[in-house]
Amino acid sequence: MAPPKYARKMKVFTRIGPLRAFLDEQKFSGKSIGLVPTMGALHSGHTSLVQASRANGDFTVCSLFVNPAQFNDPADLAKYPRDLAADERLLSSAGCQALFAPDVAEMYRQSSQTRFDFGQLDKVLEGKFRPGHFSGVALVVSKLFNIFHPHRAYFGHKDYQQFKIISMINQDLNFDIELHCLPTIREPDGLAMSSRNVRLNPDERQHASSLFRNLTSAREALLKGMSWQAVREKAEKNLQSSGMIRLEYLELADKDTLQTDKLDNLGNGILLIAAIVGAVRLIDNLPIK
Amino acid sequence: MAPPKYARKMKVFTRIGPLRAFLDEQKFSGKSIGLVPTMGALHSGHTSLVQASRANGDFTVCSLFVNPAQFNDPADLAKYPRDLAADERLLSSAGCQALFAPDVAEMYRQSSQTRFDFGQLDKVLEGKFRPGHFSGVALVVSKLFNIFHPHRAYFGHKDYQQFKIISMINQDLNFDIELHCLPTIREPDGLAMSSRNVRLNPDERQHASSLFRNLTSAREALLKGMSWQAVREKAEKNLQSSGMIRLEYLELADKDTLQTDKLDNLGNGILLIAAIVGAVRLIDNLPIK
Repeated sequence: MAPPKYARKMKVFTRIGPLRAFLDEQKFSGKSIGLVPTMGALHSGHTSLVQASRANGDFTVCSLFVNPAQFNDPADLAKYPRDLAADERLLSSAGCQALFAPDVAEMYRQSSQTRFDFGQLDKVLEGKFRPGHFSGVALVVSKLFNIFHPHRAYFGHKDYQQFKIISMINQDLNFDIELHCLPTIREPDGLAMSSRNVRLNPDERQHASSLFRNLTSAREALLKGMSWQAVREKAEKNLQSSGMIRLEYLELADKDTLQTDKLDNLGNGILLIAAIVGAVRLIDNLPIK
Repeated sequence: MAPPKYARKMKVFTRIGPLRAFLDEQKFSGKSIGLVPTMGALHSGHTSLVQASRANGDFTVCSLFVNPAQFNDPADLAKYPRDLAADERLLSSAGCQALFAPDVAEMYRQSSQTRFDFGQLDKVLEGKFRPGHFSGVALVVSKLFNIFHPHRAYFGHKDYQQFKIISMINQDLNFDIELHCLPTIREPDGLAMSSRNVRLNPDERQHASSLFRNLTSAREALLKGMSWQAVREKAEKNLQSSGMIRLEYLELADKDTLQTDKLDNLGNGILLIAAIVGAVRLIDNLPIK
């Protein structure tokens, strides 16, 4: 039986030093490096990023690290799904050429004191509900950017605010990496793919699709001219009617600044939602245009 | 007349793109890169860093950029001495092989929102008297590290707390550059060389040497067993007797943490001082051992 298309090619590293030496070899031979940072528990959203990197001609490398610094809730960290063997198989067959899967001690050699602040951008939406989250994201992404020195890096649109934060450090700290934000991959009923979805029971899973359904209805109503206040009231009522969903926020924000108080042009808006379904916190978003 | 030893070799860049391309060529040809970041108005302290880098066999590059983000006092920024032509001559003859001298627009393409916080380390000493200073330092050094990707970087011991901050981002963000902290270069009377010294009038210049004189006396007294409280009182009285010097702080700190409240072992201590002489703010320090 023939091995999967890419299966023999993926090298796995757990230490920074050997990974850097290997990447230097690739760069010296003229290859561009494409990085797909992940926290494992991989799904089609992740493999779409790997495929995009391969399609751009990059030597494609993934990181797999559940970053404690970005979990404000220890229970969420403890319950975060992990299955390294399955992840390795999925990445390998998606075309990933090298995987970096360090342990916490390799990534945090001493307790880190460095914290980031991003002005207004990390005070709203996720930043408001997950204090410290984006500082932890910025820290680990800075680490990964410095470890890989990639030419391009690939992220999913589902974590839209995260992408804005990463774009900010990329500019402000002059990483100057070409960042790609790729479309959210969805289940047939519209639910955004997420590592956390596996923690939903069948009943919760069914209700979870109402997040995206209400985003699309809200967009439609806004485009028809309904006021944001009326749209929000209706969506909030819909979402909470079953009693299965506890809404954290539903906002219409400027897609560049993520501020909710000054959207002059609806076309520049994005709807963002966070809700707890059963015991699982889910997010999603939908640009107006 | 023969040109100075190195004069013809120094390339000067004002843009990031061409500099990166040039540095990549050096790296691809197997050279290690040694970076000496400066704010210009150069003196023997700076040239000693260039010489150390050359002695290590590095291809030696300097940056010259007066970084607005690290000046908490706009008047200090406005008065900061600038003489690019003289700086170029000095660096060239000291052995610098390439100089990066960008303008503010090249380094800050859009207004930066990213701020850093370093826990206790940036709340004491300089951090206490210059709010925002170390966030600005960390931002520009992160930029420079990402622009140059050097193997080694060289800093002076006079800015000791700055070196600790840079060591922290180097570890926490995994720049993993080999950092060198080189001895403070002094005038014959002990005054630490500083770009700001040229702003002292002759009378102030004479009094400025009492900073180092009092640091050495204080160290001697501590090593003889005098209490820190008594040593500090005496030094403060000495320093302020002329009426020319306004002391901001004189502290005995742990040389690793820079905390002043828990120094178990005098040998692990460092004396640090900041004072305003005339209109010029000066700093200095002296390790106990």
